[in-house]
Amino acid sequence: MKIAVLGVGLIGGSIGLAARERLGAHVRGFDPAPAALAESIERGAVNEACASVADATAGADVVFVATPVGAVTDTLGAALRVAGGDCVVTDVGSTKRGVVASIDDHRFIGGHPLAGAESAGVRHARADLFDGATWFLTPTQSTPGVAYERLHRLLVDLGARPAALDPDTHDRVMACVSHLPHVLANVLVAQASGVLDAHGERLPHAGPSLRDATRVAGANTEMWRDVYLSNADVLVEAIDECIDRLGSVRDSLVARDAGAVAAWNDAAREERRRLLESDLEGGAVHELRVSVPNRPGVVADVALALGRAGVNIVDMALHPAPDGRSGWIGLWVAGSDPAREAEQLVGELGLPVTRA
Amino acid sequence: MKIAVLGVGLIGGSIGLAARERLGAHVRGFDPAPAALAESIERGAVNEACASVADATAGADVVFVATPVGAVTDTLGAALRVAGGDCVVTDVGSTKRGVVASIDDHRFIGGHPLAGAESAGVRHARADLFDGATWFLTPTQSTPGVAYERLHRLLVDLGARPAALDPDTHDRVMACVSHLPHVLANVLVAQASGVLDAHGERLPHAGPSLRDATRVAGANTEMWRDVYLSNADVLVEAIDECIDRLGSVRDSLVARDAGAVAAWNDAAREERRRLLESDLEGGAVHELRVSVPNRPGVVADVALALGRAGVNIVDMALHPAPDGRSGWIGLWVAGSDPAREAEQLVGELGLPVTRA
Repeated sequence: MKIAVLGVGLIGGSIGLAARERLGAHVRGFDPAPAALAESIERGAVNEACASVADATAGADVVFVATPVGAVTDTLGAALRVAGGDCVVTDVGSTKRGVVASIDDHRFIGGHPLAGAESAGVRHARADLFDGATWFLTPTQSTPGVAYERLHRLLVDLGARPAALDPDTHDRVMACVSHLPHVLANVLVAQASGVLDAHGERLPHAGPSLRDATRVAGANTEMWRDVYLSNADVLVEAIDECIDRLGSVRDSLVARDAGAVAAWNDAAREERRRLLESDLEGGAVHELRVSVPNRPGVVADVALALGRAGVNIVDMALHPAPDGRSGWIGLWVAGSDPAREAEQLVGELGLPVTRA
Repeated sequence: MKIAVLGVGLIGGSIGLAARERLGAHVRGFDPAPAALAESIERGAVNEACASVADATAGADVVFVATPVGAVTDTLGAALRVAGGDCVVTDVGSTKRGVVASIDDHRFIGGHPLAGAESAGVRHARADLFDGATWFLTPTQSTPGVAYERLHRLLVDLGARPAALDPDTHDRVMACVSHLPHVLANVLVAQASGVLDAHGERLPHAGPSLRDATRVAGANTEMWRDVYLSNADVLVEAIDECIDRLGSVRDSLVARDAGAVAAWNDAAREERRRLLESDLEGGAVHELRVSVPNRPGVVADVALALGRAGVNIVDMALHPAPDGRSGWIGLWVAGSDPAREAEQLVGELGLPVTRA
């Protein structure tokens, strides 16, 4: 397999390392920063350092655009101009509405791996960075099933758990589970700093809660400025909601309302349990066979329905029927409850489904 | 040494375990919950289970009140009624203004260990819970030097790093580095939960930032309700400040002001570096000798001046002069910069100081 990586930072470099190590892929890399490109060769993250997006992209089966969010659309455009007709082009940007709206090409499928980025740069790249990590994909009605299948399988081979989600939901969910936590970390660290300065204090040991709550404070500015701005509208709504919620806690405290404070705290414990429980998975892997018409978008429909419900597709395979007008998808899902849920969700799409 | 532990939960139980294991102390425990008391015997956290506060306290050299904040003042009162004249009575509550204002007794020194409490109960108690943990103490002008020294040394022997702080500063600092982070964790988890519900989503894997930012969400309600309410006035101010700061980020985002967003993020990185740097310590231990008049409060003055500056007193020893009207304090401080700073701070108190 020939892979192009455009932008060889932490994520691009890790894609290169994993693809070479686990798939024996041939990886061509490009980066506007010569030093990063040289380091990616040194680290073995790419086989060849290329002088341009076009050079790296020529002949690739899959192209990963792994630049900061602000440069994604331009780089995608440049790659799509030279990519072959069967090439799959994807990106790894943290927000998805902007890029999906601006690229109208069936070869493009938006992507976003939820993989740590505390330390930026190819020097921190690792072949196992994506092991077990959710990797969101935003297929659309024009996405060919074979393209989605190829990308899905490649990501599984890189160690990730691909999950389909529409761009709007993706950006709203990320605003709340990632962007707002980053904003709060920044705000908290600034406030703590101010309080300690005002009291002429140095904290003997920052408490463990402050340390945890501010771990992501001041994350890479080049990356995060773009993330914040590209999701500004939704993030502003999330901040407003957070301000409202803080105001309501404030009111309970002003009223010294012990019952309200206790109920609010109990609810948080329950909500956290519920949120983290959805991380649990397990059980044997079940195979579902879904009969599908041969039309673009049907694989996206299935993937989106399961992604939305948090059902993890461990693996998938397309089987076109000899008549070329229909076929079936094999889906592997871990755990009997998720498998049952997947069966029902696929059934609700009007697609015949059986357990293998 | 005879120690009484009143309230055998995570903290009280860990004090008992550490005192027995590291000091060979004899520990008498009391708890209003018979099951907790029985478990503390079973776990070896206390030598004797007592039927009342008075029973446990009789004959003790040091008494630790380790109940939830709401019960601290009453328990302290009961202990002080039976404690001997030379006994040191302390507590471990997370807020200090209320209790220090309500107890007027030179035998009482307020305390607060910054030790993890994710899992409550004596079954999670460990002898090493306090290793390296800051343990705030709030001595006052009426605190006898020998009482402070005895408690300081005992806490060092339990593995902790005692640091003196006045109650008002303590509560303001804790509002910001502990109570507000807990409030934000609760708010964030509720908001994420709401967003995911609204989209019919289950998060395939909660992002790492959400997981970190909400680790303390819904912490033990019995404990935290009391903490929030006992520090309500200062916490409300902290929440108001946080709301203001969020509003200002919001305005930068609405204006799509890339420069302001980048500057704000850069500042947070710098502030976090500065906050966490103060955690670093090291270097050889230096001994300072401080000549002091024999008056109550002088040891508290020294400890508070150093505590306020974040200078860690590794150990201390009082040496009364034969005339009984003066003496000197030996202070051990790690690192040559902190030692120099300590020397200067003590000098500013008008006390002669030399390096040993």
